[in-house]
Amino acid sequence: MAIPVSPLAPTTYPDLPPIAGVRFATAEAGIKYKNRTDVLLMAFDPGTTAAGVVTRSLCSSAAVDWCKANLPGGTARGLVVNSGNANAFTGAKGRDSVALTADYAAKALGCAPGEIFLASTGVIGEPLDAGKFAGVLDTMATRLGDSPWMDPARAIMTTDTFPKLAGAICDFDGVEVKINGIAKGSGMIAPDMATMLSFVVTDMPIAAPVLQALLNQHVRTSFNAITVDSDTSTSDTLLVFATGKAGVEPIESLDDPRAAIFGEALRDVLFDLAIQVVRDGEGATKQVSVHVEGATSDASAFRIAKAIADSPLVKTAIAGEDANWGRVVMAVGKAGEPADRDKLSIRFGDLLVAQAGERAAVYDEAATSAYMKGQELEVSVDIGLGTGRATVYTCDLTHGYIDINGSYRS
Amino acid sequence: MAIPVSPLAPTTYPDLPPIAGVRFATAEAGIKYKNRTDVLLMAFDPGTTAAGVVTRSLCSSAAVDWCKANLPGGTARGLVVNSGNANAFTGAKGRDSVALTADYAAKALGCAPGEIFLASTGVIGEPLDAGKFAGVLDTMATRLGDSPWMDPARAIMTTDTFPKLAGAICDFDGVEVKINGIAKGSGMIAPDMATMLSFVVTDMPIAAPVLQALLNQHVRTSFNAITVDSDTSTSDTLLVFATGKAGVEPIESLDDPRAAIFGEALRDVLFDLAIQVVRDGEGATKQVSVHVEGATSDASAFRIAKAIADSPLVKTAIAGEDANWGRVVMAVGKAGEPADRDKLSIRFGDLLVAQAGERAAVYDEAATSAYMKGQELEVSVDIGLGTGRATVYTCDLTHGYIDINGSYRS
Repeated sequence: MAIPVSPLAPTTYPDLPPIAGVRFATAEAGIKYKNRTDVLLMAFDPGTTAAGVVTRSLCSSAAVDWCKANLPGGTARGLVVNSGNANAFTGAKGRDSVALTADYAAKALGCAPGEIFLASTGVIGEPLDAGKFAGVLDTMATRLGDSPWMDPARAIMTTDTFPKLAGAICDFDGVEVKINGIAKGSGMIAPDMATMLSFVVTDMPIAAPVLQALLNQHVRTSFNAITVDSDTSTSDTLLVFATGKAGVEPIESLDDPRAAIFGEALRDVLFDLAIQVVRDGEGATKQVSVHVEGATSDASAFRIAKAIADSPLVKTAIAGEDANWGRVVMAVGKAGEPADRDKLSIRFGDLLVAQAGERAAVYDEAATSAYMKGQELEVSVDIGLGTGRATVYTCDLTHGYIDINGSYRS
Repeated sequence: MAIPVSPLAPTTYPDLPPIAGVRFATAEAGIKYKNRTDVLLMAFDPGTTAAGVVTRSLCSSAAVDWCKANLPGGTARGLVVNSGNANAFTGAKGRDSVALTADYAAKALGCAPGEIFLASTGVIGEPLDAGKFAGVLDTMATRLGDSPWMDPARAIMTTDTFPKLAGAICDFDGVEVKINGIAKGSGMIAPDMATMLSFVVTDMPIAAPVLQALLNQHVRTSFNAITVDSDTSTSDTLLVFATGKAGVEPIESLDDPRAAIFGEALRDVLFDLAIQVVRDGEGATKQVSVHVEGATSDASAFRIAKAIADSPLVKTAIAGEDANWGRVVMAVGKAGEPADRDKLSIRFGDLLVAQAGERAAVYDEAATSAYMKGQELEVSVDIGLGTGRATVYTCDLTHGYIDINGSYRS
């Protein structure tokens, strides 16, 4: 089945600059897809630090387990990503396959297997034949380049209808520091820490623990604040690599004032990619930002926002351009968090629809219905109890989601 | 939009017998629907005891609040149910409307308003004009009858595509004791205690606290073990009325050995109705029973079964007749409950598909795909850690759900 490109796809893509210290190649290994690239090899120069967050699923994939084991080392020389097979729930075969792939890559790049990071995405439960990578990785290692970044973004796609790239440049004392990122979605998206696959590379010299701390901080309001369908993947992997090639002093501590500045730029890249994942959510026709304020804590606000963003009834109403704010009330009520019906108020965009436990006196059905026809919607809920706030980003639930997911394996 | 009747609709309906002590009438009040009944009045003889469970939503409807206030009284003389408007999130207007409706009904039946129970179902947030009930209830009170039970079952329907009735008869020392029940669904179904509306009447003489205890016990494995779409209603109400007209000694205590026997019959009725709600889940084409065993506790097993049954990806795969057991693994992994990937096994029907952390050696794609074509499917997961077990009942997620819910208010 051909999946139409998301109506929320970007009209232009950023032309990300080369980053010193990283080169890459893509190839067609024919793992599941035909006539498209499905393997990515990235090679990092010695001295590259690494940080990452992976799924909290208790059924995590073999590649996720491999990354977890290598992250404490804090250094990276290579990354291998394949699409079309998640190598998840593949038991001892999966572990062997991962070890073998890392061996091939380490030999091809001349480093230790423990410096190789791996990610796989696609069908769960299907054994992945590492043999398919053997010759492929050798050849790829001979034709590494530093551009275009569109190639790796394409090679990691599964049901994505557009490639996802984002970049940022910081200036430290006249020296440019670059951050390039790529990501893929587009279903099984309810990140319990990172979502699906995303890889970010910077030339900033930065110690691994500092990079990890910044990543932990900023994943909370980017990848961890999106949901497509409330389903959490077994393969979620977000890795950040810092080659250290920019001509600035290394950041060795969070106390370095540049850490916060670099962190904000990193956050911009993560947020941009996360929103692209939502905008390419399976079957998505609208992007929805759910803002909750007035909750008893930020965590409580997040859980309420998540309940709204995950509600199939809220999402189908939005798909139908129906200003059914009663379903938002329902979702607040089911969230299990402190709420008082009679203190609740709800806005769609700037339009007040409900206040103090009932429909707002100023409610305007025509204006609200007109608002719902937009492609980018804001749903704001004030719980009226405290100062806790959070935003969760999601998309609508349409026939397209059913089409894509009723026949994914075939 | 005309909604096609569920392919899982029953081919015949039970012809429930009259129950001494209860009479009823239905009417067309024109609240939302045209050319169909939308109000039900039930009248109970003096001495009728009552028990009930209602939604735990923090945004519960005005009628739910009314029932909560009256349930401790333990007696009932009347029940008024309307479909088409939930009178939920309607603030002070909703409270006034409920009080006025109870007054009308109390006058029509010659009892106190505190002995009237109320339930409303339909759109949330739309004020309900109690004036519409004034003349209607008076007229209804003049034409009360004891049959057919199909009439009340039809009057409470909203997006239901078939009426839901179930009955049981117990024999105590040669005396027949009857239990009749009706229910309605069919979206916003993820009961956090009772789901949507269900009313059960028995002629068993039974003290209200005993009835309440039996109800609390059996709702757990019936209405509380189903989910259509993970969304919990603001209006969930399950009420049981016991007219006491059967010629047997009253059950005054749970220690009476007849309490357990009566409780089992009550459970049969609740379970039958709950399964009918699932089978009429919006857009449903398949009924799915999710069995989890080997969890660290029954509560843990329930949460894992619920995570599987609520997963959009599991439900769309089932709609597509795709034996995508990898999504079951995903749902176990996201449930947040103790699980060990490498001890997990999964069956579809009797077919073992996954074992010990990978696809089962005996996995047979053709046989499993053939099994998925059935209308009633069993998904069984053994966590392999303990003795906790639970079953959750659900349906698939199809285009029909999107059709119904993209335009519900219009």
